[in-house]
Amino acid sequence: MSKNLHTSAPDTDTAIDRNVPEFPVAQDSDEQNYFKTNQPPSYLDQLHKSTKEFIQFHKDQGKGRKVVLVTSGGTTVPLENNTVRFIDNFSAGTRGATSAEYFLENGYAVIFLHREFSLLPYSRHYSHTTNCFLDYMTEINGELRIDPKYSETMHKVYKKYNDARDQNLLLLLPFTTVNQYLFSLREISKLLNLVGGRALFYLAAAVSDFFLPHSKLPEHKIQAQDHNGGKLVVNLDPVPKFLRRLVDSWAPGSLITSFKLETDKSILIKKSNQALDRYNHQLVIGNLLQTRKKEVVFVTKDPKIEPEWFRLSDEEVEKGVDIESLIIPAVIKVHEDWIKNHE
Amino acid sequence: MSKNLHTSAPDTDTAIDRNVPEFPVAQDSDEQNYFKTNQPPSYLDQLHKSTKEFIQFHKDQGKGRKVVLVTSGGTTVPLENNTVRFIDNFSAGTRGATSAEYFLENGYAVIFLHREFSLLPYSRHYSHTTNCFLDYMTEINGELRIDPKYSETMHKVYKKYNDARDQNLLLLLPFTTVNQYLFSLREISKLLNLVGGRALFYLAAAVSDFFLPHSKLPEHKIQAQDHNGGKLVVNLDPVPKFLRRLVDSWAPGSLITSFKLETDKSILIKKSNQALDRYNHQLVIGNLLQTRKKEVVFVTKDPKIEPEWFRLSDEEVEKGVDIESLIIPAVIKVHEDWIKNHE
Repeated sequence: MSKNLHTSAPDTDTAIDRNVPEFPVAQDSDEQNYFKTNQPPSYLDQLHKSTKEFIQFHKDQGKGRKVVLVTSGGTTVPLENNTVRFIDNFSAGTRGATSAEYFLENGYAVIFLHREFSLLPYSRHYSHTTNCFLDYMTEINGELRIDPKYSETMHKVYKKYNDARDQNLLLLLPFTTVNQYLFSLREISKLLNLVGGRALFYLAAAVSDFFLPHSKLPEHKIQAQDHNGGKLVVNLDPVPKFLRRLVDSWAPGSLITSFKLETDKSILIKKSNQALDRYNHQLVIGNLLQTRKKEVVFVTKDPKIEPEWFRLSDEEVEKGVDIESLIIPAVIKVHEDWIKNHE
Repeated sequence: MSKNLHTSAPDTDTAIDRNVPEFPVAQDSDEQNYFKTNQPPSYLDQLHKSTKEFIQFHKDQGKGRKVVLVTSGGTTVPLENNTVRFIDNFSAGTRGATSAEYFLENGYAVIFLHREFSLLPYSRHYSHTTNCFLDYMTEINGELRIDPKYSETMHKVYKKYNDARDQNLLLLLPFTTVNQYLFSLREISKLLNLVGGRALFYLAAAVSDFFLPHSKLPEHKIQAQDHNGGKLVVNLDPVPKFLRRLVDSWAPGSLITSFKLETDKSILIKKSNQALDRYNHQLVIGNLLQTRKKEVVFVTKDPKIEPEWFRLSDEEVEKGVDIESLIIPAVIKVHEDWIKNHE
């Protein structure tokens, strides 16, 4: 892959000047340095404990139940230590929350590493709507009840949610910052190694490419200086590319699926292939911001296999069919082949 | 006020270099230029219509009902036109949503201009909790019902919500970007002028001080360049200070309350006074990020009046008393004096 694929000249008038190689492969030292110089989240021991129990439970009881790590929602990059301002990556968490439901329905145990307050499996149907939650309620004979208009559908969703909870099939782990995400990902990955090929990584979170190192974080809200110009200049470091490390050592036996989100269709396949070349993992699911709810493309390393599009028909879109009802069975098929070849 | 209050030297090694005068008073031309060179949100006509109807309704029917504009939640600054990345200001919207409830209980009609998906009055009690919404439900005799553990409290909240809705006392208007916020604020302010002194501005939203002008927004997700350094540099313009314009011309007869959020207690009062000096409005409510849920300070222009602290006792904090139960009655008292002096 040539570095000359990127032809546009640097432009000092451009609002964002992202002077960074597209895929800076993390050197061991970059990553080691990252984890040495940035502080683990205070709850990391607790996360380790609950994740280990969850994986061990399914290893012991599940008779070989497959386990998927679904990451979901966008990470933040705090610009101050007492965070007032931060840079965020767009994501409501729809892809992750919806995918988790389909994995559960297909017999997987799901570790759901998600941005706090982003959409969750099942409750997503009733949060983040323009309706207020209380709009689903009504008074019947002086009692507060679920409005009969909604109760049947809600009851179905509730049953699925309750089944997942009763069978200990869904572990919810929240993050907010990119730092919390990276420490959590490393911890969970190493633990998933316990189930080897039966582990599936489904990395749908929108992870920032940049961060402010702990050492550069100002303690208090930045105070303005008396100077001309009136500009805010934010200067961020690149996040080491941990995906390579996942493949190489944290979880070498697991199947790794990542997402590539672009807004320009003409470069989507190229970018997906570049990610595969560089990280040497198994599957990239490409999608465009504008059409991500109705079409995605599977790109694999096998040069004999053309990129495969999965699309909802207009009729299906109209009916509210989830594109994840096509994606998840296809990913599971790839995972089953992977398991066959690795057992 | 001396510009020399800010003594720290510019530091090029600091992650954020906010080379901007603390209170750049917007010139007419700055603001006019802002609204000329940035695009109004597509829904602005609809916002105008529903706000006008709401205000007119309370002017006609309300026999002098007071109207408060509560702004709530943080604004975003998109870094791309097809937004993937944006800068956000921290705010769940707790202050705004809680305050709106207390205004409603005190007879105000409330225009709630809020960040989409931030907390809303009443539903706030059940969203953004660590519990899933479905955890409030249970099956009783094969029917989905509200869990008796929660039903009494939820019923009380529902009644208040329903009363506000039935009496058309609460208008919910969402925004996401700082641009949408500014256009909406201008539109609503001009309309609130219809009720003159009976209008109260309660500006609790966390509004970005900086933005990327429309003309500088890249159309697509920024692609990386092949250069050394691996840095992301974001270069933002200052947002014109619209508060002065609110006072001077959009809504000259209304009472304007703004918030000042800091993390360093030693500069809180000074900053609040600076805002009053500069914008010539009536009341600044100062608060610290760390203690904002248990104490605030009222700072007014009258030099004879000392800053007044409102604090919850430890016992009240323990019981979950809202600090807004102290703030709102105090603000209303200021507003009532204002009305007396302006009628």
